[in-house]
Amino acid sequence: MTPTETAKGLAERYEAFQAMKLKLDMTRGKPANEQLDLAQGLFEAVTSHDFKAKDGTDTRNYGGLEGLPEARALFAEIFGVKPSEVLIGGASSLTLMFDTLLRAHVFGVPGGTGPWSAAPVKWLCPAPGYDRHFAITQHLGYELITVPMTGAGPDMDVVERLVAEDASIKGIWIVPKYSNPTGESVSADSVRRLAAMKTAAPDFRIIWDDAYSVHHLGDAHDEVPNLLDACQSAGTPNRVLIFGSTSKISHAGAGLAAMAANEANIAWTKVHASKQTIGPDKVNQLRHVRYFKDLAGIHAHMAKHAAILKPKFDAVLRVLEEELGAGIASWTRPNGGYFVSLDTPPGHAKNVVRLAAEAGVKLTEAGATFPYGKDPSDRNIRLAPSCPSLLEIETATRVVATCVKLSIAQH
Amino acid sequence: MTPTETAKGLAERYEAFQAMKLKLDMTRGKPANEQLDLAQGLFEAVTSHDFKAKDGTDTRNYGGLEGLPEARALFAEIFGVKPSEVLIGGASSLTLMFDTLLRAHVFGVPGGTGPWSAAPVKWLCPAPGYDRHFAITQHLGYELITVPMTGAGPDMDVVERLVAEDASIKGIWIVPKYSNPTGESVSADSVRRLAAMKTAAPDFRIIWDDAYSVHHLGDAHDEVPNLLDACQSAGTPNRVLIFGSTSKISHAGAGLAAMAANEANIAWTKVHASKQTIGPDKVNQLRHVRYFKDLAGIHAHMAKHAAILKPKFDAVLRVLEEELGAGIASWTRPNGGYFVSLDTPPGHAKNVVRLAAEAGVKLTEAGATFPYGKDPSDRNIRLAPSCPSLLEIETATRVVATCVKLSIAQH
Repeated sequence: MTPTETAKGLAERYEAFQAMKLKLDMTRGKPANEQLDLAQGLFEAVTSHDFKAKDGTDTRNYGGLEGLPEARALFAEIFGVKPSEVLIGGASSLTLMFDTLLRAHVFGVPGGTGPWSAAPVKWLCPAPGYDRHFAITQHLGYELITVPMTGAGPDMDVVERLVAEDASIKGIWIVPKYSNPTGESVSADSVRRLAAMKTAAPDFRIIWDDAYSVHHLGDAHDEVPNLLDACQSAGTPNRVLIFGSTSKISHAGAGLAAMAANEANIAWTKVHASKQTIGPDKVNQLRHVRYFKDLAGIHAHMAKHAAILKPKFDAVLRVLEEELGAGIASWTRPNGGYFVSLDTPPGHAKNVVRLAAEAGVKLTEAGATFPYGKDPSDRNIRLAPSCPSLLEIETATRVVATCVKLSIAQH
Repeated sequence: MTPTETAKGLAERYEAFQAMKLKLDMTRGKPANEQLDLAQGLFEAVTSHDFKAKDGTDTRNYGGLEGLPEARALFAEIFGVKPSEVLIGGASSLTLMFDTLLRAHVFGVPGGTGPWSAAPVKWLCPAPGYDRHFAITQHLGYELITVPMTGAGPDMDVVERLVAEDASIKGIWIVPKYSNPTGESVSADSVRRLAAMKTAAPDFRIIWDDAYSVHHLGDAHDEVPNLLDACQSAGTPNRVLIFGSTSKISHAGAGLAAMAANEANIAWTKVHASKQTIGPDKVNQLRHVRYFKDLAGIHAHMAKHAAILKPKFDAVLRVLEEELGAGIASWTRPNGGYFVSLDTPPGHAKNVVRLAAEAGVKLTEAGATFPYGKDPSDRNIRLAPSCPSLLEIETATRVVATCVKLSIAQH
């Protein structure tokens, strides 16, 4: 805090916030209504008079396990792969990831020696990371191993050492671009090392959750080389499974999800998916393809999202700078994605989240960004500024910053 | 065959069909285009100006693991349960059933002692039955045990005996009404016995696939008592999991799926589903609720389906009667559903399906209606008359009947 900010002054500021009876929520990376409004044309993109795919497929009827050809082509552009390397799913990439890991668990994967469930499994969790990722592997009973983030993706020295020595480590979660919550992107060098590294497990898998691939905030765009290409060059083509969706492009709860992988992983996925479904909703695929057309259409659309999101992120960063700029805490300044990651001095995150809640500002639970919900340093706080209004974000961030300073002053 | 039908005459008739270069398909229970056309209003039921649920929920955004309240209420009416006993899924009840069994396999179910995968599992398969059901339990490595159908559901003497003596039998597939392919419905007495029977497995489950609950063909409606009620009365409330969808009500590939069960099973499902998804597509739920409104709306809509389907079923039955009525074969005369089940004399089904294929009429593979795709008597053939035109159905059935007689004459 600045010299003028006494513990008493901070407590008074905090009480003043409490008196405002705020009810603000910065917990989840949920699009704001204005963002959802951008894709309203989706509702009318397929009508009762015009519901056939380009090849004449009646999208209303059964069939199409792989997805419509034009939907596969759209995601092929997004992922930078061939359409034959893409499978379209339902509305949720989380479901595709969950189902993929459950298939590996029960049936095993190409290049492996059998079901993963046959022996204890460990899983690498770069952290701070995405709580729903960690939850899936925890749910399967896997031992979660924290890997530090470096600002350019997971610490590859740690990753290489661990996967080389322990065959029970079957995979790693990675959000390659604008990672949740740190906003960092995997460097070109790390992509190369991920593809080339020796793994003790012959069936090691990288779950490459490309959730924010086109989700830039401004003119500075992070670029991450294509990991499937890198794996194919390195002779490890089975290693990577790519996931993504339009959840934060079109409508969060009614978008399209897709996965991409090499031929062997796609064939494997189809074997199991064909027992689970006759095929995903093709009408919604057609809506998306008609509305967005191609990757250029997606980029143009995402620029409109950025125009809404950028001022919100700027407000968070400005208030944090004003309140905590004197070296009291550190935070990320991402070029894209949905989060600002705030690090307090060690031992304060839980207390700050509690104080903020008691002043009417709901934050993601402290620890949520780490395996088992436990931040060993108790310092990381995820701020999700997409959904509230600009004014709410300024106020909420001001409350959070005040709580950081108050917590430090009190302890 | 009639006395006038010589082997030579049948062979000539068959060759005449072959010369027609037919290309007919009676393989799957796929709705015809005219049936899909009945629900065209779905496309415009939710618009860019009107996309909120009754409680104000923005259907475009994340959330809603259980489904919209109005969607749960609609399926509660269809299933005859309370809305709190319903969970809405994506577009496919097959997926809900697959996921349910995978959860049981990996995690175990309420009332059980652990994951089903911990020990060999056997599964009861009333047959003739639905090939995609059998495929799921076969895929999980379960031993499939055939249970005969009686004309009023599975043979309960056999079911009761098997489940009482063998704790490795964890469940049974049942299509309660207008079963695939025999069109029969489970009797009230069998519902009572299913609920009351003693099972050696404490975590025995009935997968009650209520796929055709409102799919009547004419004025005669089969009625099946509610199994969840019966189980609750019998003190076996955990025993039944009910599934259904609008796949053959609205649009086959873009409908709504749902499940129903008691509180314990619903809570269990939510624990696992919450790791797999943030929630299913609510926009599509709203479309369906707005379009169909309630069970009365569904019934009125299904009467229109029946008006299309009944003449097709009548054509099949008339041609079978004309060609095979003299005791040569037997077949079902269902009050609803999607199939006519034809039994040739033993040892002819495979040959008939092959002969029909060589005359341009594709049928469901012989044996598909039995576990492992093997009909021990090689006699059952599933006819699916929904999709082709009336003229095509008459011709296709004529071809099939001719093939039956030819096969008998030749052997």
